[in-house]
This record gives sequence, C-alpha cells and structure tokens, in this order.
Amino acid sequence: LESVVSGSPRGTTEEVVRVELGARSYPIYIGAGIIETIGPRLRERGAASRLAVVTNPTVAQLYADRVCRSLEETGFTPVLIEIPDGEEHKNLASLASIYDRLIAAQLDRGATLVALGGGVVGDIGGLAAATFLRGVSLVQVPTTLVAQVDASVGGKTAINHQAGKNLIGAFYQPRMVLADVEVLGSLPHRELVSGLAEVIKYAIILDADFFDFLESALPQALDADPEVLRRIVSVCCRLKAAVVGEDETESGYRAVLNFGHTVGHAIEVLTDYNRYLHGEAVAVGMVFATLLSEARGYCDPATGDRIRRLVERARLPVEVPRDIDAGALASAIGVDKKTRDGAVKFVCVEAIGRSRFERIEGRALAAYLTMWRAQETESAEPRGTE
Amino acid sequence: LESVVSGSPRGTTEEVVRVELGARSYPIYIGAGIIETIGPRLRERGAASRLAVVTNPTVAQLYADRVCRSLEETGFTPVLIEIPDGEEHKNLASLASIYDRLIAAQLDRGATLVALGGGVVGDIGGLAAATFLRGVSLVQVPTTLVAQVDASVGGKTAINHQAGKNLIGAFYQPRMVLADVEVLGSLPHRELVSGLAEVIKYAIILDADFFDFLESALPQALDADPEVLRRIVSVCCRLKAAVVGEDETESGYRAVLNFGHTVGHAIEVLTDYNRYLHGEAVAVGMVFATLLSEARGYCDPATGDRIRRLVERARLPVEVPRDIDAGALASAIGVDKKTRDGAVKFVCVEAIGRSRFERIEGRALAAYLTMWRAQETESAEPRGTE
Repeated sequence: LESVVSGSPRGTTEEVVRVELGARSYPIYIGAGIIETIGPRLRERGAASRLAVVTNPTVAQLYADRVCRSLEETGFTPVLIEIPDGEEHKNLASLASIYDRLIAAQLDRGATLVALGGGVVGDIGGLAAATFLRGVSLVQVPTTLVAQVDASVGGKTAINHQAGKNLIGAFYQPRMVLADVEVLGSLPHRELVSGLAEVIKYAIILDADFFDFLESALPQALDADPEVLRRIVSVCCRLKAAVVGEDETESGYRAVLNFGHTVGHAIEVLTDYNRYLHGEAVAVGMVFATLLSEARGYCDPATGDRIRRLVERARLPVEVPRDIDAGALASAIGVDKKTRDGAVKFVCVEAIGRSRFERIEGRALAAYLTMWRAQETESAEPRGTE
Repeated sequence: LESVVSGSPRGTTEEVVRVELGARSYPIYIGAGIIETIGPRLRERGAASRLAVVTNPTVAQLYADRVCRSLEETGFTPVLIEIPDGEEHKNLASLASIYDRLIAAQLDRGATLVALGGGVVGDIGGLAAATFLRGVSLVQVPTTLVAQVDASVGGKTAINHQAGKNLIGAFYQPRMVLADVEVLGSLPHRELVSGLAEVIKYAIILDADFFDFLESALPQALDADPEVLRRIVSVCCRLKAAVVGEDETESGYRAVLNFGHTVGHAIEVLTDYNRYLHGEAVAVGMVFATLLSEARGYCDPATGDRIRRLVERARLPVEVPRDIDAGALASAIGVDKKTRDGAVKFVCVEAIGRSRFERIEGRALAAYLTMWRAQETESAEPRGTE
C-alpha cells in the first residue's frame, strides 16, 4: 500500500493509492481535473481501441464530452451506453440493456468498460464488466464523493432485487480508478453531504487522527474545497484499500466497513430507496450502532457524543424515522445478505478509530429501537444520555 | 494434481481428481453411485443447514429424491429449485427465477447451491452461485457425460444471449464436484455420444495414449460401461484440471480447450441450438479444424484420417450442414467471445495429442469451407484428401 503525490499531466497535484491484491492490484489516481487523463492512461496500458463508457444522462451531459474527447484523441473508439439515473434502475433490466449494447457494439474479451458516474453506474457497470464474456477490463471513474471514497475501492459490484439492495453481484476488481475531485464541485449539496457520511464512517472505525481532521475541516468539506476533498478521498481510499487488501471477498475483517450499514440498508429498503440517499441512511445506522455500543458498554458516552456531534454538524439525519416500526426493521435486517443463520455480524464502536464485531439477531437490534423510543417518550430527554 | 483410487462409502471404486487453484482448489469425486454421498460430504465440510438444489424437471424426476434424501438424512434442509429443461432456457429469465427462489428461501451468504443436472443446469446454477449475494458455495453434480468431463471442471459459468452462446457469465470455482458415472446409464444414447465428442477432443489435443485407449474402448463407452466411463471421466478431468490449473481465466493456454468450439459454437448459433447437441456441433468443429490443419500443413493426412475415423465410429456428425453458407459462418464467428479485433485464436492440431494456436479471421475460416465445398462438388472425392 503506497501513496504518491506527484504532478499530474495537467500540472495539478495528484495522488496515487495502490490497492494491493496480488495479480488484481490496481492504482487509484486522485486529483483535480484528472478525468481528462483517461485516454493517455489507457493508451499507456495498451487497452484495445474499442471500448464502452457506461454512464447516466445527468453525468453524460456534464462529462461525457470530456471523457470521450480524451479517449478519441488517443485513438480509442468509445461507445457511450446510458442507463437511467437512480437507485430504482440498478436492476436486472438495466444490466440486460448494457449487455445488449455491448454485444451490438461487438466488443470482445479484450475490451474495456469505463464506468463513469456515481454508485449506481459503478455497481451496475462493474457487474456488467464482471459478467460480459466472463469478464472484461473495468475502469472506474466515480463522480460522486460516496463513489470515490467507497464504491470504487474494493471491487464490489451489484444490482438490487426487489427484496433488497445489492443482493446480486460479484467481487470484481477494476484495472484502474480515476477519482477527479474537481467534479465533486458540480454535485448537488445533498449528495456531497451523503458522501461525507461514508467519510465519517472510515474515521470512526479506523482512524482517530482522520476524525480529528474532519472535526476541523468539515466546513471546507461542505464547501467542496478541492484540497480538503483530495485529502479526504485519498485517506479514505488508503484506509479502505488496506482493509480490502486483507480480506478481498468479505469473509472476515472487511465486514468492519459495514459499520452503520446493517440498519442503514434496512432503512433504505423500508423507505423504498426514495427518501434517503445511501449516506443519509448510513448516518442513521452509524448513530444507531453507536447508541447500541454505548448501551452495551462497549464505548463510553463521550465517544458517542463526539460521533453524534460530527454527524449532526454535517446535517446528516441521526434517527430511525418514526414510521418505521421495530418489527419491520427486524425483518428487513433478516434478508440482509450478511445475515447468517438469523444473526448479523454487527459492527460496534469501542473508541474513535476502533471497532468490534458482535453477532446480534435482527429482533435484538429492533428491541433496542423499541426501548430507546419508549425512553424518549417517557423522559423527553435526548436518547442515550441516561 | 493427484488422482486417488479408493473404496467409496458404498464399497464401489471411487477416484478423486484434485483441481489445484490455490485457495480455490477443489476435489472431483468420480465413481458409480456416489450421488448419495452428497449429504455426508457436505456435513463433513461444515456446510450450513439450509441449501438449494438447482435442477430441471427431467433430472429431478430421476435423482432429486436420492439427493434430497441423502441431504435430509445428514441434517440439511434442501430447497428444490427447478428451471425448465433445454439450452433455450439458459437465459436471464431462468437466472432471475433462481434469484427469486433463493431470496424467498432466505438463503444467506453461508449457503450452498447444488447444481444437479447437465451443462445447462451447471452453467446457470453456477452463475447464480457466483452472483447471489456476491457468491455462495457451489457444488456441481453433473449428470451428463459432457458435463462430467467438461462443464464441471474449470469454473466456467454462463447464460446465453440471443446473439450467442455463453456471452454472459463468470469464472467461479465449485467447492466440490460429484461425478456419478452410474447416472450416465440413464442418458439418452444421443446425449452419451455427444459427450464422447468432448472426450475425443481431450485425446486429440492433449493425450495420444488416451486416444489409443478410446480407439479400442469406444464400443464399451457407447454401451455406457461404468468402468470404461469412470476411466474416461477421470482422465478427462485430470487433463482439464491440469490445463485450468495453469490458466484459470482463459487468458492464454486454456484456450486450447476450445479445439472444435469456434466453428462448433457458430453452427449451434446458426441452427438456433435446436438441431445439434453441443458435442455434435463440436465434432463438426473438430473435423473442420483438423481439415484446416492439414490444408495449412500443420499436420499430416494420416493424423487427420485417424481423427475423422474415430469421430465417425462414434456416429458423430463431421460436416458443416449445407444450409449454412460460408458468409453466415464468418459473421457468427465474428460475435464469438474469443474473437479479438476480428481474428479468433484458432486451435489447430499438429499430431494426436499436440495442438497449436493460430490467429485466423472468421472470413478466412469461411473461405476454407467455400473451397472444400467447391472441391467436393468438382471431384465427388472425400474432402481433404487431395
């Protein structure tokens, strides 16, 4: 695992984080404006001339021209494949439409698929690359903060099923990731904030110094300051790369990255993916996991308070919405793919930068929710402070 | 790579071929009646109690009871998932129906999927296992000769697309393969013969001694003699395991296994998969590749004659059907997933047991067909003897 800061082809500062996975190792380039280096970089690697760029209409309007121009100027013939925008289209129908287009374009096994977009495009484009002709080269160009810090590192690809998020997918590593922090400036503010939830997650479970940094740099991050975002993206990528390098297919330790996600996923399912952005749901899940860690004595209340304060300062939601009842939460957790024989490997916090696993059943998690709600109603006091 | 002959739990002789792929290594058990050892073997490996058996109605009627009884007697709770029989159902719709059933059964990441059937069940069940929850344990129980000698070794999983065979899929290794040669006795004769085409393929490209054996044991093989079939299946598995061990994802040498398949696949596509069984199309492709090897001077005519004689003795087809014209063949080869920048890595024969690769364009292959047909019409002599 290494990180190199060097001048990029455009003269801006660029960092490289290498994800070490033996034969499947790959670099993540992080910098401002580097989206336009895609052509030369692929040329350098000897990619075949015909390739596909999978994106959505919103991202295409903003960046397809720049990406395709860079590709064409270096001798590539890109085929642009658009899938509809939004989590509700991260399904088998969209995947099938990508296959149809890849086949119509007569792309072969030596082809490269570039996924240009946020988490949906990255996940579904990644799965298409993993399964088209039993696997073609994949390049991730994530255009949202959440995709840059999370979805583009680690090789998780997926589509949703009506029964739950990411139930169908594969572990498939990209050959290269280009994380251009300049494009984050065009993100809707709510998307940027949602990404910060995943950023805060990394700090909580893995890096106390980074948590300190976020406490001080949060205002600049919320203003999409490129230098702060570059540091944020590279720290998160390095942290995630280290975890993934130890456990590529989530058989053990990697599950630490699910901090906040057990409850977060359940909330997304129960609100039909249309009320919360992913990071917002994860924020609620992180606060839930923190409260539970306090209630079980795994961490002290001061730690819990610090976590909640940072989440709240980012204007992220912190409470499971009242219209979700405990029973529904328990069943939604029951179909989560990390469930094993009814219990989930739940990530708890011990201190800022340190976490632990506990096997907890969905209904036990739901019982805490019921208890906290009862306490709140009784005391009208903030939760978790008794 | 090792092969062990030992007494099976039922007292019959059993062989074990180990496919060496590092952390993804797995054993292939080959013997008569070993289908009923599935329960104890999975128990021994500590498989989770809930598991799915993917099969088709024909195979289910013959063997589901025995497999499920073995599983239930050892404490498993199998969910039986049937997909319609036939290559035309090896598609996204069948795959989606398997996902639905796996999710309805609330199987989790620790679950095992048993693929009980021929190539279609193995390919689609394998892809379901590869992609459900980003991968669950897979056990292959191939019930046809072609599946036992070919599809169950090497981790290729796939579904078809209307534009071609196996265009969508993944490389995904099973945890264990149970090849019960006793079940081959219930195969329609045509299916058995189709499987022998793949068997002959292994002999031609990899093992001259095995070719000698097939020349002498062909009559017993055609009679489904269990001892001869056990030897055939174990030799083929050992040969394929050695190739796959060197090149898991078909980036190079493994493509030798495509001998006869470039033209074979094209013929299957052009006859809508409803005229030839896979092995029959491969037989035509092998004879085509042999003729081409002779025409280019890669092998001598005596070698070609020996190959054609064995294929004909097995009553396998040897000619590209007249209603397929050369142009159609060229385009069908153009969409084959092994095509790269228009040319295909074509496997030629140099001698019995020895092959070589040549990059040939689809239209060049088709030109040979045109030439042979013209020669035949002119001379009414057997092809390839001038």
